[in-house]
Amino acid sequence: MKWPHKHLLDVEELTPEEIYYIFELAQKFEEINLRPIKKIPTLKGKSVILYFSEPSTRTKTSFDIAAKRLSADVFSLQSKGSSEEKGESLKDTVLTLQAMHPDLIVIRHKQSGAAKFVSEKVNCSVVNAGDGTHAHPTQALLDGYTLYKEWKNFKDKTVLILGDIAHSRVARSDIILYNKLGIKVRVCGPKTLMPKNISNWGVEVFYNLNEAIKGVDAVECLRLQLERQEAGLLPSLREYSIYYGLSKQHLKLAKDNVKIMHPGPMNRGVEISSDIADSKNSLILDQVSAGVAIRMTLLYLFLT
Amino acid sequence: MKWPHKHLLDVEELTPEEIYYIFELAQKFEEINLRPIKKIPTLKGKSVILYFSEPSTRTKTSFDIAAKRLSADVFSLQSKGSSEEKGESLKDTVLTLQAMHPDLIVIRHKQSGAAKFVSEKVNCSVVNAGDGTHAHPTQALLDGYTLYKEWKNFKDKTVLILGDIAHSRVARSDIILYNKLGIKVRVCGPKTLMPKNISNWGVEVFYNLNEAIKGVDAVECLRLQLERQEAGLLPSLREYSIYYGLSKQHLKLAKDNVKIMHPGPMNRGVEISSDIADSKNSLILDQVSAGVAIRMTLLYLFLT
Amino acid sequence: MKWPHKHLLDVEELTPEEIYYIFELAQKFEEINLRPIKKIPTLKGKSVILYFSEPSTRTKTSFDIAAKRLSADVFSLQSKGSSEEKGESLKDTVLTLQAMHPDLIVIRHKQSGAAKFVSEKVNCSVVNAGDGTHAHPTQALLDGYTLYKEWKNFKDKTVLILGDIAHSRVARSDIILYNKLGIKVRVCGPKTLMPKNISNWGVEVFYNLNEAIKGVDAVECLRLQLERQEAGLLPSLREYSIYYGLSKQHLKLAKDNVKIMHPGPMNRGVEISSDIADSKNSLILDQVSAGVAIRMTLLYLFLT
Repeated sequence: MKWPHKHLLDVEELTPEEIYYIFELAQKFEEINLRPIKKIPTLKGKSVILYFSEPSTRTKTSFDIAAKRLSADVFSLQSKGSSEEKGESLKDTVLTLQAMHPDLIVIRHKQSGAAKFVSEKVNCSVVNAGDGTHAHPTQALLDGYTLYKEWKNFKDKTVLILGDIAHSRVARSDIILYNKLGIKVRVCGPKTLMPKNISNWGVEVFYNLNEAIKGVDAVECLRLQLERQEAGLLPSLREYSIYYGLSKQHLKLAKDNVKIMHPGPMNRGVEISSDIADSKNSLILDQVSAGVAIRMTLLYLFLT
Repeated sequence: MKWPHKHLLDVEELTPEEIYYIFELAQKFEEINLRPIKKIPTLKGKSVILYFSEPSTRTKTSFDIAAKRLSADVFSLQSKGSSEEKGESLKDTVLTLQAMHPDLIVIRHKQSGAAKFVSEKVNCSVVNAGDGTHAHPTQALLDGYTLYKEWKNFKDKTVLILGDIAHSRVARSDIILYNKLGIKVRVCGPKTLMPKNISNWGVEVFYNLNEAIKGVDAVECLRLQLERQEAGLLPSLREYSIYYGLSKQHLKLAKDNVKIMHPGPMNRGVEISSDIADSKNSLILDQVSAGVAIRMTLLYLFLT
Repeated sequence: MKWPHKHLLDVEELTPEEIYYIFELAQKFEEINLRPIKKIPTLKGKSVILYFSEPSTRTKTSFDIAAKRLSADVFSLQSKGSSEEKGESLKDTVLTLQAMHPDLIVIRHKQSGAAKFVSEKVNCSVVNAGDGTHAHPTQALLDGYTLYKEWKNFKDKTVLILGDIAHSRVARSDIILYNKLGIKVRVCGPKTLMPKNISNWGVEVFYNLNEAIKGVDAVECLRLQLERQEAGLLPSLREYSIYYGLSKQHLKLAKDNVKIMHPGPMNRGVEISSDIADSKNSLILDQVSAGVAIRMTLLYLFLT
């Protein structure tokens, strides 16, 4: 397939065929990560900028590893100490970066729409690594890929996304991707953490976890930002965890061999119990490995 | 030309011939930045340390990109978390770094004279990336190079440097460089932001922008550090911007096709109006591209 | 020698033969650092993660330089902005890192035992770069190697370790290593900074520096953490420096040609006088150079 896109801003842009093409390639790239010599010269002489205005361990390191294993040069910019912090606009910051002739900018930003905005200003490729509450397309692709490796096809599969749906860019991107792949999606969480227009999202909505989980093939727990409680959206973490924390008793209601996912970092004992996170049903660490492979694939598609 | 210098501490050290030699080489290196494969093996196995005790997006990233495109190994040290922050002297920090056998140290430091001090302690090359209010030689070289590409020669050219002359290492280094190249230099700013001994700097001094700008070929706006107002050197940002902010009406008084420069990051609406920063007269992004080429040239000259 | 270890957590694990083998190899690697081209392809395609939850200039840069000169890919994670700071457990952080398939994790952590804990969770190699007050094995190896180059053998040699023995992971690791190599060890410091069980450590204990230093071949000064005074363990820095700060008059009591060491960063005028730190007896910068060579050796042993 000749790759038709210049940027990855949202999974909305991708056709099912393109998504499956990414999954096929990712399997080849994943194999490189298991070799004793984890490096191929494919992107030698390409310049990749990682511009992260929010802290991130896993996403940033995942892109860094993906780029260097393909032999690209990587340049990391943090918001701390950046010109944006000195009062420069995001537009001027990215035009400045562009003038140094990078081939691709990976951006994480606290403002929804930042990645799209940047893509309209620069002439290199832009990959959205999470913008506000809007989208996190590489997370959705790695989540879909993790399930793809497990299931091979998505016929009659149902995934439950559990937790703070309203503020989660992961939920938003996952739902779009799963719908494109024909996976049935349920969401479950307290009313205060459910988007107002959820009825338009193409999902089944539940407020009771015991009902939501009946017969599902996988549960993706979302990280609960502990700030939500201070904002008055939750009575208490303890009560949240009683009603919406995934625990062993819930799993009996799901399909046998139900898969457990979490984008990380986890609050063990809040949105997920520790024994489930470490159980044989858990794909949480597979998601991390998949992340490197997916990002290698995307860098390859955008830079060759 | 056999390069006779070990360090770059101040443009004062360079002859006009050496400056033009840098400009000639920079044109060759700039071409590498436009290739699909932006990398040559020239500095493979050389170790370059970037020691920045002040935050910086563009200068640090520019050196980082320059070094890696020449295949050098780059080691970044921030002041945050450095031994200097634990109370170690700058001397001990750089002697420690030297003992790891780097080939070149790029240093930015809040103390004027820091780069020279370091160059006297270590036996590797030192490049000054900005020390206090003293000097910023690579900025001056990239500014001169940007104008050189535009004009080819500097006969009968006049540049106006506008703003906080007193506290600007960019102004200081630009004035010295422009004088060496035969460019006439004017400076303009409020009296509170003009150095006391400005009459010795070989420049024409103006306090009124409408007079200063008459017939100039280029205007370089300086960043206004917003702290100046707190220090009582400015009545208000609004008043500063009325009298010394560059706006469209001023440009009518300059030469046709006057060039606009700014070392960045810009305070749009303070020292420069937004429409001018984005106009076809603006060389602001050309300066950034020039920066990578100039720094590649310097690393090449000092390390081969 | 076929290297039998997977991790380096503590010098306790190493036999004298293994320690001498490291020293022999380090001499070969040290030579690479003096070449014009300081790079060999030995570890190309290996991924080394530097996970530092405490600030560090010299140790982190030393590992970074060591890894890149052997052509490994290096991924730096700071605690600031890491998932651990977002409340993730150390276990989940390292399992996440492991899922990206690194070959080796270098860890510095404020908790004693962190390196061992990590080594039990991951399947790649782990090198302890300092954990709490427990151990700093690479520092001990570079200290021993520095003396080995000076003395060739350790027969009848006595080293005095001076200062805050109770809180020093350097002291702990040095004492174990020196004992293994047959070096006699003395320790000296105020009672408040001496471990309670010091009588079991296989060292001679002194509380008076004039007595402790008599006839020793080397003195290793420890950094005094200035927090100790706030904690009430010291009457005043001035008084500490009078009784336990190493100064010229003390050296007359030691062997001629006594060697002076310090792991850095130094508080000049507190635990060591400035003239001694800079004297010809000082091996302080040799220790830094030795650090790069020792770390190259260890990366080589664990990754080939």
